[in-house]
Amino acid sequence: MSKLYNDHVLWEETAGASLSLHSGINNAVLHKTGFIKSLQVKKKIFGEDSLSGFRSKETFSQEDLISGRSMIKQVIIGVVCGAAVLTIGILIGHFGIAKSGTSAPSWLKDVAKDVDENLIEKFMSEVDNIQIQENLRSLTKVPHMATTAGDEETVQIMLKRWQDPETGLDKAWREEYWVYLSFPDKNNPNTVTVVSPTDTVLHTIREKEKPYTPDQSDPEVVQPYAAYSPAGHVKGKLVYANQGKPSDYSELNKTVDLRGTIAITKYGGAGRSAKAINAAPYGVVGVLVYTDPLDMNDGLMSDANETYPHSWYMPPSGVERGSYNIDFGDLLTPHLAAKEETYRINATDITGIPPIPTQPIGFEDAYRLICELGGEPAPDAWQGGFNCTYNFGGPGFKPTSSFTNSDVKLDIYNYEEVKPSSNVMGFIRGSVEPDRYVIYGNHRDSWVHGAIDPSSGTSVMLEITRVLGKMVKQGTWRPRRSIIFGSWGAEEFGLIGSAEYTEQYFAALSERSVAYINVDIAVFANATLGASGMPSMQNVIFKAAKQVKAPGHEKSVYDNWLQYTNKTSPTHGLIPRMGYLTGAGSDYAPFSHYLGITSMDMSYTYDKTKTNARIYPAYHTAYDTFDYASKYIDPGFVGHQAVARTAGNVLIRLADSLILPLNCTDYAESLEEYLSTALNLYEQKLKTMNISMEPLKHAVTSFRAAVSNLEKVIQGPDLANETPLRVRWINDQLMLLDRAFLDPLAFPDKYGFRHVIWASSSAGKQTFPGLADAYANAESSGQASDWDKVHYHLSVLSQAILGAASTLTDDMQTQTWRK
Amino acid sequence: MSKLYNDHVLWEETAGASLSLHSGINNAVLHKTGFIKSLQVKKKIFGEDSLSGFRSKETFSQEDLISGRSMIKQVIIGVVCGAAVLTIGILIGHFGIAKSGTSAPSWLKDVAKDVDENLIEKFMSEVDNIQIQENLRSLTKVPHMATTAGDEETVQIMLKRWQDPETGLDKAWREEYWVYLSFPDKNNPNTVTVVSPTDTVLHTIREKEKPYTPDQSDPEVVQPYAAYSPAGHVKGKLVYANQGKPSDYSELNKTVDLRGTIAITKYGGAGRSAKAINAAPYGVVGVLVYTDPLDMNDGLMSDANETYPHSWYMPPSGVERGSYNIDFGDLLTPHLAAKEETYRINATDITGIPPIPTQPIGFEDAYRLICELGGEPAPDAWQGGFNCTYNFGGPGFKPTSSFTNSDVKLDIYNYEEVKPSSNVMGFIRGSVEPDRYVIYGNHRDSWVHGAIDPSSGTSVMLEITRVLGKMVKQGTWRPRRSIIFGSWGAEEFGLIGSAEYTEQYFAALSERSVAYINVDIAVFANATLGASGMPSMQNVIFKAAKQVKAPGHEKSVYDNWLQYTNKTSPTHGLIPRMGYLTGAGSDYAPFSHYLGITSMDMSYTYDKTKTNARIYPAYHTAYDTFDYASKYIDPGFVGHQAVARTAGNVLIRLADSLILPLNCTDYAESLEEYLSTALNLYEQKLKTMNISMEPLKHAVTSFRAAVSNLEKVIQGPDLANETPLRVRWINDQLMLLDRAFLDPLAFPDKYGFRHVIWASSSAGKQTFPGLADAYANAESSGQASDWDKVHYHLSVLSQAILGAASTLTDDMQTQTWRK
Repeated sequence: MSKLYNDHVLWEETAGASLSLHSGINNAVLHKTGFIKSLQVKKKIFGEDSLSGFRSKETFSQEDLISGRSMIKQVIIGVVCGAAVLTIGILIGHFGIAKSGTSAPSWLKDVAKDVDENLIEKFMSEVDNIQIQENLRSLTKVPHMATTAGDEETVQIMLKRWQDPETGLDKAWREEYWVYLSFPDKNNPNTVTVVSPTDTVLHTIREKEKPYTPDQSDPEVVQPYAAYSPAGHVKGKLVYANQGKPSDYSELNKTVDLRGTIAITKYGGAGRSAKAINAAPYGVVGVLVYTDPLDMNDGLMSDANETYPHSWYMPPSGVERGSYNIDFGDLLTPHLAAKEETYRINATDITGIPPIPTQPIGFEDAYRLICELGGEPAPDAWQGGFNCTYNFGGPGFKPTSSFTNSDVKLDIYNYEEVKPSSNVMGFIRGSVEPDRYVIYGNHRDSWVHGAIDPSSGTSVMLEITRVLGKMVKQGTWRPRRSIIFGSWGAEEFGLIGSAEYTEQYFAALSERSVAYINVDIAVFANATLGASGMPSMQNVIFKAAKQVKAPGHEKSVYDNWLQYTNKTSPTHGLIPRMGYLTGAGSDYAPFSHYLGITSMDMSYTYDKTKTNARIYPAYHTAYDTFDYASKYIDPGFVGHQAVARTAGNVLIRLADSLILPLNCTDYAESLEEYLSTALNLYEQKLKTMNISMEPLKHAVTSFRAAVSNLEKVIQGPDLANETPLRVRWINDQLMLLDRAFLDPLAFPDKYGFRHVIWASSSAGKQTFPGLADAYANAESSGQASDWDKVHYHLSVLSQAILGAASTLTDDMQTQTWRK
Repeated sequence: MSKLYNDHVLWEETAGASLSLHSGINNAVLHKTGFIKSLQVKKKIFGEDSLSGFRSKETFSQEDLISGRSMIKQVIIGVVCGAAVLTIGILIGHFGIAKSGTSAPSWLKDVAKDVDENLIEKFMSEVDNIQIQENLRSLTKVPHMATTAGDEETVQIMLKRWQDPETGLDKAWREEYWVYLSFPDKNNPNTVTVVSPTDTVLHTIREKEKPYTPDQSDPEVVQPYAAYSPAGHVKGKLVYANQGKPSDYSELNKTVDLRGTIAITKYGGAGRSAKAINAAPYGVVGVLVYTDPLDMNDGLMSDANETYPHSWYMPPSGVERGSYNIDFGDLLTPHLAAKEETYRINATDITGIPPIPTQPIGFEDAYRLICELGGEPAPDAWQGGFNCTYNFGGPGFKPTSSFTNSDVKLDIYNYEEVKPSSNVMGFIRGSVEPDRYVIYGNHRDSWVHGAIDPSSGTSVMLEITRVLGKMVKQGTWRPRRSIIFGSWGAEEFGLIGSAEYTEQYFAALSERSVAYINVDIAVFANATLGASGMPSMQNVIFKAAKQVKAPGHEKSVYDNWLQYTNKTSPTHGLIPRMGYLTGAGSDYAPFSHYLGITSMDMSYTYDKTKTNARIYPAYHTAYDTFDYASKYIDPGFVGHQAVARTAGNVLIRLADSLILPLNCTDYAESLEEYLSTALNLYEQKLKTMNISMEPLKHAVTSFRAAVSNLEKVIQGPDLANETPLRVRWINDQLMLLDRAFLDPLAFPDKYGFRHVIWASSSAGKQTFPGLADAYANAESSGQASDWDKVHYHLSVLSQAILGAASTLTDDMQTQTWRK
């Protein structure tokens, strides 16, 4: 659009404007004073109509000319006419003639244009809860696990919607990767049985979840399984290993010989695959995993009246499926996009997956197994929601049990396969800075019907693209920057679609991406907004949240949020507490951790004072359906609507703002918080080890100084008069800030983690993750080489923070680096 | 400059213009006809002449008014005056009033300005050979090995010159690093002796080079040594190991038991430290290194009339000093800037340095040792310039020698020290794109006086900065982009100053650097220009070389170059042959290999048909002095002048061109050449290993397609009308092209090498280095895991080339990636 509005059109339009001005002026300009010629000129310029009301020179009489009255009149007329002609001339000159050479090109306004608040209002008003509901209905018609026929149906839905001529995007297409997946064998379902010493099967764990609605009976509902658990047939005496943490096995091993046992563990505390990885060194041969009702159901267990379909709680036969791996991305092609001919490592070289057969089961069966266990009672902290004492296991069942002397047997038939998985990509081309990308994404694949995970997010994304797409197709809007939408495949198997995408387009995405917005589970519950992200995203999220009405309230999403979870910021006072993206829980991870793209994740969520649920209880079960979502998670879809409005508002601001709405002051504040915690926790001890934290202090101080200077420039009065290149420079500094924190060698043991500040950490401290882990490790081993690693990481960290400060600094050399 | 001329000033200026118009208008508004004022206005606008033919109102009589003549006259006057007033109005309107909103801002011309050819002419004409000569004289007054007092003197020279108020830069400053260096002990010089079985010293290797001018007698001339060789006292029977390559020791080991021996090797064929690293596994306990007269002196040996001071050849006592390490950058702080408190690894963990004592000696002594050796004659290929047969060594000397049964003994007293080393940095701030850096650098430290290495380059750099600095100080020029000048410290010890700089400013340099120009040894000899660099630099180098007169010829540097070394390009036909930056021979390495910054290296050099000299013969000896340079390398300094003109021309083009003069078509051509070689060498065999080269072919084809599209945009007629942001985008694509080839994991065993295309390689093939090495390795071992590495590297390579193609492509998704 802006391209059509060139100099030529400008001339025509302004000529038209002076024409209308003229017709009001002209009637008396030239009575008797002889300006026919100028009228003719005018006629040429303004057309015939402008001559109406003029008399020709013949109408002037001689009498008029010699009379005194006439004389004065003539003078007055002359003056008036002269002034009028001059005015006309000025108007013609000003509006009618394009300035040669120095004339303003038509793009000048476009490049200086800021975000349009009215457009944001319009966007938000058009976001419709019923549309979201219907999106969800169509996305959840069938199970759509990655690479299944159901998955392909959702691919087609996305393509159809994004290619819609009325409400679609500029372009939409499919990106395919050949990825390594793990499935149970339909023909040989995994079984878990209790077998007597004579191999009589005494009990069989339920194979599939109990149906309450037709959804659970769909033949495409995948049997619960632990993806990437090896196939195998193992049996042994059962033991209870709490959450399967290293400390749990170590505690259990004090009194029980774990060799040859099967460990039953509950979800939580350790990653899924860690429960088996931690077990194997003790000689454990198989692992069961279940969801304890205390951790998910607030203790409720009965499907007669307590659990779904009577409430949001997990029914007794519900099983959380999941991917049992640590690293994200396709496991056979680390750092490489998994194209058909890409080199693949040997499957035996994959790390981070269970070394022994593993299977998740429902608490209905876990109840039976655990309550029959013999041996010593487990510690209080290990007790759960069952109405029995959780014993360690003799190993095995107690003498009074009908299972006594019996083994638990796992027959796991999982198989692995390299299959093509699709991302669906959508694109709106930016008008002014098409080479800057705001990326918005969510995965598309689910374990079963996936109404909440991930289709709530996809329904929201589709509503955002419908409203924006319509404006684009109608020609009423085109963002300043390009927007990429990603509907990722195979996230459930380890963020595979998004990870492969970031590996494939590493260079272009690094160069051009302004930010990544992830909305996976859009609504966990309808209490309050929750958001995590880089600190520089906080401000724009707050701004959006203030403009959206909280569902069920008159107040804003922001004000509502503030009541649920808040903190006091030195800069802002009381504000909602945002989280940081430290883990790899969803598709933001490849963007934030691997590429260093400023990212955020957002959802409506629950009131943590009202439930102990680890997550919404139907998570990864066959009960995560449209019925469940519409009845118990977000009746009326107003939570979805609020998220769509908030996330869409953020998206438009990122795409349209003249200066990117990324706030580096908030980044400085977070680094200062981390530093303060680190000093409290580590400084004293490190001094005794001759390791100085001064360089880190200095780095954070330098970062703050760079931020203050840049903020002055951004807030300063001069920016409006600056060249688009100056504005671009500032935006580049803001865009590249997170990139500057990357160090591909900072975490050699953590695949895909390169952002020095926001990485996963096992130390559980709210501070720099690499420092916290290195310190915890050194403290526990006491070895000099481990203290060296603390010192090394301090240098890595300080250099990265100083590097980020130099990104924010105009002249590298004005920055004071410590000696 | 452009900054002052902003909208506000524009308004005042034009307002001033209309003000003066106005004061002319006032006085006569009401004279009978009322148009005197308009005449006066005209007078102001058009000058006095334009008023001829007009009379003032006083000249009109009443009679005139009533007469018909008067009437006509009045009408005519009226018409004329009216037209005049209208014209004036138009003029006022057009020029006098700034168009609100659409007025052209003053920066518009600046942002669209291209390089000024006249300025380049002016620059070149001002580059003065005598100035360069005097620069060299002052830089070579004393030896200036890194971190010595002499080094500090050169720091002061650089600072003084770059801070000069008449000819200096905008800013100049010092950057200091605490770096790990190795020195001989002044109080305990290293000794190499031949000792009899009874420990009688039969011969002592010369400790310092023989003086021919006062330069060699300077007490600050450092004793020849192998930097980073460990101290130690070893003795053993001497053997001759040719160039110390793995194949040499393996050959020698076939007939000689190497345990406990001292190996004498000649320079060339293998890296300095490799000669000792390759020896140690065979039980060799010490290594001597010398320069064979055949490799450097075209066989000449006599200082009576053949060598310096009679010619440029190395005198018999001359010794090439050097750093005996493989990795570049400070050895204690890999990947980290060596600040005072940076974490340092243990010195014992350094790899790539000699594990056994090593010492370089002159050929005068080597002659004695080698010609006395016993044992079998070495192969023909091992023979050198001495007039004797080079034997393997018995081990040890031949029975007929007075040295028979004697050992060679090395007493090495080298010590290591962490010392502060300085870079001197200079800066010219860009006018339009200050956040884009063109970097020009050379090291400042030498081994002794370093007239050629590196002061010839520094003299050239100082002359370039003098001419450019003067234009900046006089306000006649300011580059579009910023220019950074770097005078690096401690390059001789392993590119330390430049490497630490790139580690410290990794983020900002990655984000902003357009190109790096390295001119280290500016003149090896005065025959022809030689240049190496990324292929995208070729075009701008050629352009510059065509504009500079070749020293001693009427033709251009380009035409002269074409005669010495050329190739046929599919695109350009016959062109001079440029080299690629594959090794780490000078300070370009951290920029090109670690940061992926488009780089080049340039010098005047010799006619390879006329000499076998491996390099100019005084290289790293005490004879590399002003006397030597001015007499034998470049009398009259016209070679220096030509290099200064050519490199400066390139520098200005990179800094000032609207579209960066980086040519990606030439890049495509180089990749195609590499591909074609790789297919010839490897495809057939790889097919039998089930490894397809199709993805690599596809990647190169995609790269070519992306290049063609981008070139169309660059050459297209539309660019002139585009926004500065469109131009910036193209420039960003060109700037970031080399960054896109980076993969920090591509060469896990090669420190600092991250650019997938231009890395060092031991396979000696003119093709993709990682592929060539992996293939050679697999072919030699035959192991499946090594063939896997070939396949893996093919994927790394294909992905990097496709990534680079996506950098050159506007929409990532338009690119056809292979499945």
